[in-house]
Amino acid sequence: MDTSIMITLQELKELIWHKKIGQLREVFEEYNIVDMSELVGELTLQEALFLFKTLKKDITSQIFAYLSHDKQEELIQAFTGPQIKEMLDALYDDDIIEFIEEMPANIVHHILQNASPQQRVEINQLLSYEENSAGSIMSTNFVVLKETDTVPVAFRKIKEQGSTAETIHYCYITDERKVLRGVVTLRNLLLSDQTEPVSEIMNTDLVYVKTTDDQEDVAKLFEKYDLTVIPVVNDDKCLIGIVTVDDIIDVIHEEATEDIHKMSAITPMDKTYLDTSVLEMAKSRILWLLILMISATFTGQIMANYEAMLQANVALSIFIPMLMDAAGNAGNQASTMVIRALATGELKTSDMMKIWWKEIRIALLCGMIMGGVNFLRILLFMGTVDMKTSLIVSLTVFVTVGMAKLVGCTLPVIAQKLKFDPAVMAGPLITTVVDALSLFVYFQLATRFLL
Amino acid sequence: MDTSIMITLQELKELIWHKKIGQLREVFEEYNIVDMSELVGELTLQEALFLFKTLKKDITSQIFAYLSHDKQEELIQAFTGPQIKEMLDALYDDDIIEFIEEMPANIVHHILQNASPQQRVEINQLLSYEENSAGSIMSTNFVVLKETDTVPVAFRKIKEQGSTAETIHYCYITDERKVLRGVVTLRNLLLSDQTEPVSEIMNTDLVYVKTTDDQEDVAKLFEKYDLTVIPVVNDDKCLIGIVTVDDIIDVIHEEATEDIHKMSAITPMDKTYLDTSVLEMAKSRILWLLILMISATFTGQIMANYEAMLQANVALSIFIPMLMDAAGNAGNQASTMVIRALATGELKTSDMMKIWWKEIRIALLCGMIMGGVNFLRILLFMGTVDMKTSLIVSLTVFVTVGMAKLVGCTLPVIAQKLKFDPAVMAGPLITTVVDALSLFVYFQLATRFLL
Repeated sequence: MDTSIMITLQELKELIWHKKIGQLREVFEEYNIVDMSELVGELTLQEALFLFKTLKKDITSQIFAYLSHDKQEELIQAFTGPQIKEMLDALYDDDIIEFIEEMPANIVHHILQNASPQQRVEINQLLSYEENSAGSIMSTNFVVLKETDTVPVAFRKIKEQGSTAETIHYCYITDERKVLRGVVTLRNLLLSDQTEPVSEIMNTDLVYVKTTDDQEDVAKLFEKYDLTVIPVVNDDKCLIGIVTVDDIIDVIHEEATEDIHKMSAITPMDKTYLDTSVLEMAKSRILWLLILMISATFTGQIMANYEAMLQANVALSIFIPMLMDAAGNAGNQASTMVIRALATGELKTSDMMKIWWKEIRIALLCGMIMGGVNFLRILLFMGTVDMKTSLIVSLTVFVTVGMAKLVGCTLPVIAQKLKFDPAVMAGPLITTVVDALSLFVYFQLATRFLL
Repeated sequence: MDTSIMITLQELKELIWHKKIGQLREVFEEYNIVDMSELVGELTLQEALFLFKTLKKDITSQIFAYLSHDKQEELIQAFTGPQIKEMLDALYDDDIIEFIEEMPANIVHHILQNASPQQRVEINQLLSYEENSAGSIMSTNFVVLKETDTVPVAFRKIKEQGSTAETIHYCYITDERKVLRGVVTLRNLLLSDQTEPVSEIMNTDLVYVKTTDDQEDVAKLFEKYDLTVIPVVNDDKCLIGIVTVDDIIDVIHEEATEDIHKMSAITPMDKTYLDTSVLEMAKSRILWLLILMISATFTGQIMANYEAMLQANVALSIFIPMLMDAAGNAGNQASTMVIRALATGELKTSDMMKIWWKEIRIALLCGMIMGGVNFLRILLFMGTVDMKTSLIVSLTVFVTVGMAKLVGCTLPVIAQKLKFDPAVMAGPLITTVVDALSLFVYFQLATRFLL
């Protein structure tokens, strides 16, 4: 793995200080724009502003899109009106929307003031799509053809529209009312007879989404159909935009992070770890911590009910942490597997019987091994514990590990059926439910066999 | 979202039974191949074999690539030698490798027997790359150009190689020793002067990977540089293959699933939930369950040490489940956030000081709220508990929530520094470590203030 970047931050700064405009332009032409953007992110505001004045705007707009939101804000505040307009002209509009969404209101105002009237309408339109909808991540820069265009006409149009389009590999065919009719790839065009009209070559069996569709569903279509671009239409099936695969990769990543956080009882946040303030961070965690602590009142209640027995057999309490952990872990394993499989579409709620049948057998197997090993562990390492207690504890391990697996695989499916998010509803609650169950089983068995 | 499929399984079966070859070909031309593959997956072997004999091989090869491994195996066993050869000719070789890797040895033998000598060499070569390496997911079907090719020559070559190449949107330029020199997009070629040699247009600042690079690192490059294709080279920088973004999406998904499973103490598996046998499933879970149960011997030991005190104050034991859960949850939140941020590259081990400073403040905030609410909870709902015990319990909540957050954010970073996988080493262990700590603090505080 090598990206062959060969200029250091210091060298870049020196080129800027000595105003070596020619060399600067060469450097930015030659090296990878993502790597160069990283360096630009380290420059002072003055140095960066010099660069943005010096370099060509197709280069600066790309650099701008790759900068952090903080850097973007800093630059926008320092830009003159015409500079802002130039930047907006050169950026793809999904990049414009992505950075505008993160800017404070006064900056957004500043940007919109300097946009052309048409840009303003477009930006406002794009900003109005709901967060996480297809409309909010789409680009409106794409190549459009007519059904009657011949191959040479198509190529001419591609050359005309190609400089601003986000991709020219997929060209969309619409009718006079902008209704999406088909798609043709550049490959189709290149490999086909020059005299044919586009309507003969185009693929009419299109996978498309609506502006209001959830980005997670859009990502699932990309995976299912191995897409690199998907067209976005409105309610009348008019072509409005396209979503490209690079944005979908970000969506897949974000959604996975969100699911992971939810399973660990963290309310999802938008920003990165270091960018999130302590207060936001605490807020995203405290709610679930409190809910789970207060729901632990039940486990306390169960314990209180058996206070007399605990008093008579203190040895029993020694095993409570182990029992709760074993049950919690076993339950978590099952729920995690099912939650993830539901999220990726690998499992459906209609698979409940199959899941149960599988988990019952796993539960029996794991329960027996755990119970057996626990019995040996007590025998070998905890000589002071009497045989009867060891047996009760080991039996409880067997029963609770099994129960935990069944509860763990069932709760997420129920949550999904009730249209709740399985990661939120089932993930954090499993431990609490399973804890209460395991204590109950433990004391029931102890009452029966010990007293 | 609409994929406009309009034929039912029943209709498809009827077309096959009545041998309506013309209509069948039309249907498979018209509808989306992924949807049609789903239908083919539901056919009987006889019906599917009829289809594979009837349809064009560029269609059947695509259908084959989308079928489940079980269906593929069934078909391969029923295919004649020439049919297998035809299928191998028409498939992209990353698809060949993907299905061969899942087939039992006798089927692989059967396939290799029917491959051409050159195919056999290629397949064996591709199969020899380590699992999860760039070499194991790459395709060797790509367009190659020479530096001296002019634009018209390039277009001619693209048309020649285009029918077998996995993508023609990116064409790679190599020298006579096959060393990778640059890349040119179809867009560059289309928008540039027809007389220019490719060397003038090509981009020499290439992001590439080696065959031995880990697929997770390859995926990170796709994200960082917004790529749709990446070239794969050997140690001498000779171009060997390309990895396309559709395969990378699968990698990103798999890696997220793996991390989620590891954090919940499940050893990662290759297959899907329903495809994995009960025995494999139990095996992937039992190891960690046992490790965690046996490590709970420590918590038992701590409890045993304070047996006398528990005997004298049974009320203390009532709060143990709640304390352990609160600490476990608080620790899990911190470790999950840090593990995920390390996995996505958002955090580095060098950020340890920043992480601590952040978590210390979150810990204080969450600890105080939790301690306070707990005190109120006992006062309101558990009237029988005396004031001194409530205070000790609430103080323990404050201390252990804080400690759990610090342990939770530190363990993953240490694991990463020691080159262990944070998800494996830190995820499952957090609860056990934090449980022991919280019990220790609880009994220490109780000894000091209660006796």
